[in-house]
Amino acid sequence: MQPEPVLDLAHLGHLEMLTPKPDASLRFFVDVMGMAESGREGDSVYLRGWDDYEHHTLKLTAAKKPGMGHMAFRTRSPQALERRVAALKGSGHDIGWTDGDLGHGPAFRCRDPDGHVIELYYETEWYAAPPELKPALKNQAQRFPARGINVRRLDHLNCLASDVRANRIFFEDYLGCRLTEQIVMSDGSEAGMWMTVTNKSYDFAYTRDHTGAKGRFHHLTYAVDSREDVLRAADIFLEAGVPIEAGPHKHAVQQTFFLYVYEPGGNRVEVCNAGARLILAPDWKTIVWTEDERKKGQAWGMKTAESFHTYGTPPVDEME
Amino acid sequence: MQPEPVLDLAHLGHLEMLTPKPDASLRFFVDVMGMAESGREGDSVYLRGWDDYEHHTLKLTAAKKPGMGHMAFRTRSPQALERRVAALKGSGHDIGWTDGDLGHGPAFRCRDPDGHVIELYYETEWYAAPPELKPALKNQAQRFPARGINVRRLDHLNCLASDVRANRIFFEDYLGCRLTEQIVMSDGSEAGMWMTVTNKSYDFAYTRDHTGAKGRFHHLTYAVDSREDVLRAADIFLEAGVPIEAGPHKHAVQQTFFLYVYEPGGNRVEVCNAGARLILAPDWKTIVWTEDERKKGQAWGMKTAESFHTYGTPPVDEME
Amino acid sequence: MQPEPVLDLAHLGHLEMLTPKPDASLRFFVDVMGMAESGREGDSVYLRGWDDYEHHTLKLTAAKKPGMGHMAFRTRSPQALERRVAALKGSGHDIGWTDGDLGHGPAFRCRDPDGHVIELYYETEWYAAPPELKPALKNQAQRFPARGINVRRLDHLNCLASDVRANRIFFEDYLGCRLTEQIVMSDGSEAGMWMTVTNKSYDFAYTRDHTGAKGRFHHLTYAVDSREDVLRAADIFLEAGVPIEAGPHKHAVQQTFFLYVYEPGGNRVEVCNAGARLILAPDWKTIVWTEDERKKGQAWGMKTAESFHTYGTPPVDEME
Amino acid sequence: MQPEPVLDLAHLGHLEMLTPKPDASLRFFVDVMGMAESGREGDSVYLRGWDDYEHHTLKLTAAKKPGMGHMAFRTRSPQALERRVAALKGSGHDIGWTDGDLGHGPAFRCRDPDGHVIELYYETEWYAAPPELKPALKNQAQRFPARGINVRRLDHLNCLASDVRANRIFFEDYLGCRLTEQIVMSDGSEAGMWMTVTNKSYDFAYTRDHTGAKGRFHHLTYAVDSREDVLRAADIFLEAGVPIEAGPHKHAVQQTFFLYVYEPGGNRVEVCNAGARLILAPDWKTIVWTEDERKKGQAWGMKTAESFHTYGTPPVDEME
Repeated sequence: MQPEPVLDLAHLGHLEMLTPKPDASLRFFVDVMGMAESGREGDSVYLRGWDDYEHHTLKLTAAKKPGMGHMAFRTRSPQALERRVAALKGSGHDIGWTDGDLGHGPAFRCRDPDGHVIELYYETEWYAAPPELKPALKNQAQRFPARGINVRRLDHLNCLASDVRANRIFFEDYLGCRLTEQIVMSDGSEAGMWMTVTNKSYDFAYTRDHTGAKGRFHHLTYAVDSREDVLRAADIFLEAGVPIEAGPHKHAVQQTFFLYVYEPGGNRVEVCNAGARLILAPDWKTIVWTEDERKKGQAWGMKTAESFHTYGTPPVDEME
Repeated sequence: MQPEPVLDLAHLGHLEMLTPKPDASLRFFVDVMGMAESGREGDSVYLRGWDDYEHHTLKLTAAKKPGMGHMAFRTRSPQALERRVAALKGSGHDIGWTDGDLGHGPAFRCRDPDGHVIELYYETEWYAAPPELKPALKNQAQRFPARGINVRRLDHLNCLASDVRANRIFFEDYLGCRLTEQIVMSDGSEAGMWMTVTNKSYDFAYTRDHTGAKGRFHHLTYAVDSREDVLRAADIFLEAGVPIEAGPHKHAVQQTFFLYVYEPGGNRVEVCNAGARLILAPDWKTIVWTEDERKKGQAWGMKTAESFHTYGTPPVDEME
Repeated sequence: MQPEPVLDLAHLGHLEMLTPKPDASLRFFVDVMGMAESGREGDSVYLRGWDDYEHHTLKLTAAKKPGMGHMAFRTRSPQALERRVAALKGSGHDIGWTDGDLGHGPAFRCRDPDGHVIELYYETEWYAAPPELKPALKNQAQRFPARGINVRRLDHLNCLASDVRANRIFFEDYLGCRLTEQIVMSDGSEAGMWMTVTNKSYDFAYTRDHTGAKGRFHHLTYAVDSREDVLRAADIFLEAGVPIEAGPHKHAVQQTFFLYVYEPGGNRVEVCNAGARLILAPDWKTIVWTEDERKKGQAWGMKTAESFHTYGTPPVDEME
Repeated sequence: MQPEPVLDLAHLGHLEMLTPKPDASLRFFVDVMGMAESGREGDSVYLRGWDDYEHHTLKLTAAKKPGMGHMAFRTRSPQALERRVAALKGSGHDIGWTDGDLGHGPAFRCRDPDGHVIELYYETEWYAAPPELKPALKNQAQRFPARGINVRRLDHLNCLASDVRANRIFFEDYLGCRLTEQIVMSDGSEAGMWMTVTNKSYDFAYTRDHTGAKGRFHHLTYAVDSREDVLRAADIFLEAGVPIEAGPHKHAVQQTFFLYVYEPGGNRVEVCNAGARLILAPDWKTIVWTEDERKKGQAWGMKTAESFHTYGTPPVDEME
């Protein structure tokens, strides 16, 4: 009998995005993406989609260069947090405890093999909408904004990595993440991984950084309710002068209906819809895409833009 | 520190539906719902949506009266199944082991306080599409049928119960199900419960049987990808002469976009879409709807049809 | 050989809506419906959807009671206007010329048999978007607002009439309107008419006023791009506290996907989508619905709300 | 005062498509596009979308090479047909009368400057659905098929032309078609034209044949109800192994949401949706796109595939 799976992470909690243009980035997330500001502290503004249950899912922090400050996962229980910390301590990946942040309690920080910073926390502040944002239905966190793209909730993030395989093993072994799909090249090297801790088919992805750089960020994704909402997002990005990199189109991998743009700070942002697709099997069999299969492009034939393999934040030429 | 939640059930696996008109019911599920037949045995035909990963999610069995034969949950692991069986044995709810069925291995049967039969199993047969149903994308179980309503996957089921509270406690205590929303009447009695074992906001619901009968079935629901797909389903049901009971409309409870019809055998069937809504919080705070709130009707004001509270299968006047 | 049809009217141009709550009505049309203000004069504010090509399609005028000030049709040419005026002059329906209004040139006014005021005009002012409302694509009148319901363009209007038949004959004989669908009761009386001067299946409808009152207004309708947009409109009306009368649902007559609400001034407003349906046949054969057919309710079975037959503006008890 | 516009053509009636693989083409249109066969005669099969009111909108004819046999417009009246024939006779464009065809009466044939054959007719046979295709709603021509892509109605066609300007003048002067949008290159030459005789923003388009060939066919387009329906069409084409050339994406010109595929005979076929966009202005001001503007690609940035400018039917290397 196989050992039982580790189920200690509950979901992706939030991401800290660094931006050299904090005012313009904030306007983008509020006016165009339709998000709500739920707090400010120091150089950071905290933001949320209308159906995110926690205080925030995006921490936008002014910085010299764009990129990701950290990603954070909420654990399923205090005990689950303790178990993960015990596993990480002394592993060489551990950084240590922080006192927490606006919206959540103490967090344990660690680093993946590529150097991205990851926080684990359990204690969190449930969002309480102010009167003007109270929803009509009590099972909803916040009033539907009816502004811009109206993103619903944080969906996933994507990092670039110089060594995808090493990162996959780290997330499997230390955090109990499950690999639902991956790309394995003809030489046996791993070029992409999609991992989940929920019934979503992925909560984060790592893809190979073709520049060989380490620790870079690829994109953050918010979910909307339908593919039509993604198309409408494209209309709205066009009107707002937001540069569209690719899409709307359907990925072959994970079948996500996607749209990639650049926020004013230079970070890539995605709006997506997955339809009613969920991974319900507790023993899902990883889908392995070969190099040849990936050359076919996306589901309906669109070729992947070259920038998709090379552009990340911070841009390589701005790294020290 | 609270004890950790039980996470032993992975998802709703399938439902056995009884029908006095097996041929007409089969035609309904295949031609109108767009499902595929994956097996036959005895008086039963096994059916599936195009994205269901197991052999089947619906077992359609010829019987004198309509209703539910049993519901079945897949556990997360063999160990999880053992734990649930240990909890049930000797509880008075237990029935005992079966050898399994077409498509899955040994199953442990039990009964909820209202008498509905529940199976738990772990071993399952993954669906292998025959050549003519092979999908273009390898991360999909079966080719999109492009026929009828094209239901994607089993979503949830709903039973009627004479005592909702007793059933809630049973599912919480013995099976580790989590209560996401409920209706509590002014007199303190519970009139409805929505429970989940996944990130879906519910995998099954029980509502009060206003006739006072026990063990009846309310409906089975398949998911489609968008609200527009539900509207199109209404167009298709209309053309096919399928009686529409209610909808399309949006429930206040759970915000599901719903459409209820009757299959030829007399059972109520729903087609639904939940948008991108998921319950990600591991400590979700149950939403409690009051009697007054429920009187307001559905989200956009539609009043609940009276038949919704009284019609179930088998019909009361056909019960022994 | 049949005489050739009169093709002198080009389309419904605008409607003047009277409101006893001008500020609240204005906020409704701008914030919730997503319309833009294009002018003010006297007690009136002029409004438009983002794809309306003329200066405005709605003139909102402060008044003691809600209702319709007038409806206006643009003719296909100056000559066509002359022909219609010649036909009306001395008919008893004619009122006479006005100097025009903000946004359009001289207009000829007349009255239908029920007393509703109708204007015909040809000269019009094409909308020129100010810089902040310039669209990204030059074949669009105005930037997509990404605010509220984002209604696209005026679609149609509906009046109540004490004598539907008399009004039908007036619109056919004097204005060349074509009857695409109608309701004829068992006693031979006409209870509803849907008429067009375009390829839309109707530009206006008249239905019987069950109160027997004359000259009342039933509703004004703006079009959005999809049925999903109508569903989203329902979500947004709910959040904004706008009373929903009926829908979203699909009419059997004309198959319009509809949603009716009340604007703060008391007038009924509709948001609709017709899919890709057009009447292309120049000799369309009028669809006649019988009394029995109408009793079946709407397309998917919803019964027509009683208020739909009796509530109009001004309300009967406010009429002099 | 300007002369009044000619309004003699009612709409695009049908197209005769030539195919070297008649059986495979027929299967494509029936099984994948979801069309219905309404007749057979000689080497031709007649086909229709579920909301086309005439006997057919596509005549599929076996031939050595793919391409267009002819296009046909229905006139608004018998008198209108007489006027157009009078204008064409002796113009050098006229071919002469035919006795008609399955589904329509006598037709007058002419040729545009590029050599494409055009038929004008008035008498037509309204489609009468056989019992198994009777719709539930009497204002609909045929039952919604719930099979494949379920195309609703013929939308438009596109031809290639060696001299776009000459063709534009022909359609304006002889047939009264209105130019809604066009592409004018930096050297003043016309590279594309979109013309209408209805409230649709175009009923046909001609674009420059970059190979310099004459009389070729570019594509035929059927309309579906929403952009989501076009996305679903892409899913279905992928499953059916139909080659996708481009899309789904949104054209800058006309803002059509498009998807281009190749039917088995080699002809390009489009599925489109225009939302609620209509041209209501009787004096629409032609939108002129410059060479620089067209270099920007489609609305959301997709570059136009090179094959779009060069591939037509018959292929150049198969022309005599």
